[in-house]
Amino acid sequence: MADLPLEPGQTIGILGGGQLGRMLAEAASRLGFDVAILDPEPDAPAGRVAAHRFVAGYDDPKALAALAAVASVVTYEFENVPAAAVAQLAGMGALVAPGPEALRVAQDRLAEKTFLNAHGAPTVAFAAADSAEAAVAAVEQVGAPALMKTRREGYDGKGQRWVEHAADAAKAFAELGGAPVIVEAAAAFERELSVIAARGRDGAIAVYPLAENHHEGGILRRSIAPARVSAAVADQAERIAARILAGLDYVGVIGVELFEMAGGQLLVNEIAPRVHNTGHWTQDGCDVDQFEQHIRAVAGWPLGPTAAVARVEMLNLLGDEAAGWRRFAAEPETRLHLYGKRDAKPGRKMGHINRVKGL
Amino acid sequence: MADLPLEPGQTIGILGGGQLGRMLAEAASRLGFDVAILDPEPDAPAGRVAAHRFVAGYDDPKALAALAAVASVVTYEFENVPAAAVAQLAGMGALVAPGPEALRVAQDRLAEKTFLNAHGAPTVAFAAADSAEAAVAAVEQVGAPALMKTRREGYDGKGQRWVEHAADAAKAFAELGGAPVIVEAAAAFERELSVIAARGRDGAIAVYPLAENHHEGGILRRSIAPARVSAAVADQAERIAARILAGLDYVGVIGVELFEMAGGQLLVNEIAPRVHNTGHWTQDGCDVDQFEQHIRAVAGWPLGPTAAVARVEMLNLLGDEAAGWRRFAAEPETRLHLYGKRDAKPGRKMGHINRVKGL
Repeated sequence: MADLPLEPGQTIGILGGGQLGRMLAEAASRLGFDVAILDPEPDAPAGRVAAHRFVAGYDDPKALAALAAVASVVTYEFENVPAAAVAQLAGMGALVAPGPEALRVAQDRLAEKTFLNAHGAPTVAFAAADSAEAAVAAVEQVGAPALMKTRREGYDGKGQRWVEHAADAAKAFAELGGAPVIVEAAAAFERELSVIAARGRDGAIAVYPLAENHHEGGILRRSIAPARVSAAVADQAERIAARILAGLDYVGVIGVELFEMAGGQLLVNEIAPRVHNTGHWTQDGCDVDQFEQHIRAVAGWPLGPTAAVARVEMLNLLGDEAAGWRRFAAEPETRLHLYGKRDAKPGRKMGHINRVKGL
Repeated sequence: MADLPLEPGQTIGILGGGQLGRMLAEAASRLGFDVAILDPEPDAPAGRVAAHRFVAGYDDPKALAALAAVASVVTYEFENVPAAAVAQLAGMGALVAPGPEALRVAQDRLAEKTFLNAHGAPTVAFAAADSAEAAVAAVEQVGAPALMKTRREGYDGKGQRWVEHAADAAKAFAELGGAPVIVEAAAAFERELSVIAARGRDGAIAVYPLAENHHEGGILRRSIAPARVSAAVADQAERIAARILAGLDYVGVIGVELFEMAGGQLLVNEIAPRVHNTGHWTQDGCDVDQFEQHIRAVAGWPLGPTAAVARVEMLNLLGDEAAGWRRFAAEPETRLHLYGKRDAKPGRKMGHINRVKGL
C-alpha cells in the first residue's frame, strides 16, 4: 500500500485521457508529480502530457497491472470506471480515490438519488422501473411531465426522454432500449447551480463558491462564478456538499449539480465523483483550482484555499467554436484553455475560456 | 517554413528539459499545443510532460532532424544552444525563437555588453582580455576591485572571480582556465532588480512589473514583485527592455538583470534570452505568466496582459529545502511549484514557492 502523503516525484495514475485528465496532469506536474494515463485512445490529450501512457481498455488486466506497477495512487476523470478495475488496482496495492462507494452511487441514478435522500441531500421525487408497465406506473407516481433516464450510462443529455403523459411512458422506455430507468419529477427550478467541493484523506472538507450554470441541448454552455446567491443558499450548498462527501467517505474533488427552487431551496440534480466542467472557472478565479485540489486530496496532501479571487464567466468551446482561439487570445480579460483534441466534431468539448473580472 | 500563428494541436520543440522547459510545456499544454523535448538526460523533468522526447546531445544532427520533423517552431530554455544546432533547425524549415542574434549576444559576455551599450542600455565599465598580461591591463583600466568572468559559459556565479588588486589579475585569469575573459568594474548598486519582457512576431512589446532580487552565493534566493520602484525607474526599465528587444529583433520572453544605482540609474547586469527565474512570480502574480507569454510569442500569437494582480514573494527551494513541501502545502498563501527532479543535490533548484499577497 502506498505511503501517504505521496512524495513529489512519485506517480499518480489517471484512468481516462481526455481534457479532465489533461488538466489534472498539468496540475500534478506543477506539484512535481509524474502522471500515468490509461486510455483506449492512442492519441488521448492527457497521454501527451504524461510520463507513462498505457493504451488499453479500462478493464484490461495487463494494462491495469502496468498502471499499478508505476502508480501507487490512481484516480479517474469519468464515473463509469468498471468496479472490477478498481478492485484489481486495489488488490495490487494501489490506492484508488475516490473510492468504490462513490463510483457505485454515481454509476446508478437510482442508487445516487437513494443515497442522497438518505444523507439529507434533497432531490426531486423519483421512481424506478424495469419494465414498460412499471415505467407507466412510475410516471403516474411522480406525476407527468417527468424525465425518464436510463439508470446507467448517459451524459450531456444522452439516455433520457421527457414523458409528457403517463400513456407515453412505455414508448419512452422502449426508445431508451428497455434498460432499467429512473423517472424523475420535473423540477420547476429558478436556476441551475453547482458546487465543487473536496475532501482530504484526513476528512477535511473545502468548498468552492457556487457557480450558476446554463445548458444548451443538454450540454453545459457557460458558468458564472461566484454565483450571486443568498447566504442561506450558500450555507445549504455547503451543508449538502459536506453531507455527501462524509456519507461517501470521499477523497478528492466532487461536482454537485443543484436546482435552486423558488424560495431558495436547493435540490441535488446529480453528482460527479471527479473534477467537473462547472469548476473550470476555478483555474482563473481561485488560488488553488479544482485540478490541483483533486491532486492534493488523492495524494494525501492538505487541501488548498477555495475562496474566489476573481469573478469568472466560463464558456465552453464546442466543436468548431475552438477555431475562435485567435480572437480569444487577443482579449486581455480572456484566459484560453484548449484540450489538444484532434477532431472538432459538432458539440465536442474542445476547450473553454474564462473571462475574468474583479470580484 | 511554418505558417504562423501556430495552430493549437501543433507541436512546439524545446531544447532543454529542465524546470524551465517543464513550465513551458505546462503552459503549452494549456493552450492546446503538443511539446517535443530534446535533452541529453533520459529522465529530464520536461520530457515527462511532453508528447515527444528525444534523448540526445544538442548538437546531434539526427535528433535535431527528428525534432524539426515534428516541431515547426523550436525554442529553448538555456542560452548555450550551439549555433550549429539553430542553423540546422532553421535549414530544415523550423522557426527558431529567439533567433541567432539573441544567442550570439547572450553566449559571449563581451558581445553582450558591447551590444547593450550600442543600444542605449548602460552597463558597468568593462574590458576584455585574452591573456594574463591583458587581464592585468583590463583591471587597471576598469579599476580594482573588479569582477573577472569567462566570456562564455558560467551561470549561478560559476566562472567568475573577484580581483582585489590589478596584481592579482594574472592569477585569477589562470584560475578561470586561461579562457578569454571580461573584466567588469564593481557596481556599487543599491538593489538588484530585473525586468521580464516579451516581444511578439509582430514587434509588439509587453513588459512585466520589475522584481527585486536577492542572491546568496551567486544563486537567486528570492524575488519580490512588483518591486517598489519610482515611476522613473519603472520607465527606465521599460525603455531598456524595449531597446534590447528591438535591437535583437527578438521573439519571445527575455530576462534582463539590472543594478539600481544610488540616484536611481539602472545598469544592465546581464540578459537571458529565455524565461527567467526572476519571472517565476508571474505564475501567481499575473493573469498571463512568463511561460504562457513565451509560448504565445514564439507561436506568433498576440501577447497577453502583464499587469500584476497580486504581490508575490518568490523563494527558490534549493537542494533539500524542497523537502519542506509538506509545510508549504499547508500554508494558504503559498503556491508550490516543484520540478520533478530526482536528486536534491546541494544548491540545485528543486522548486520554488510563490507567497501571494494583495497588491
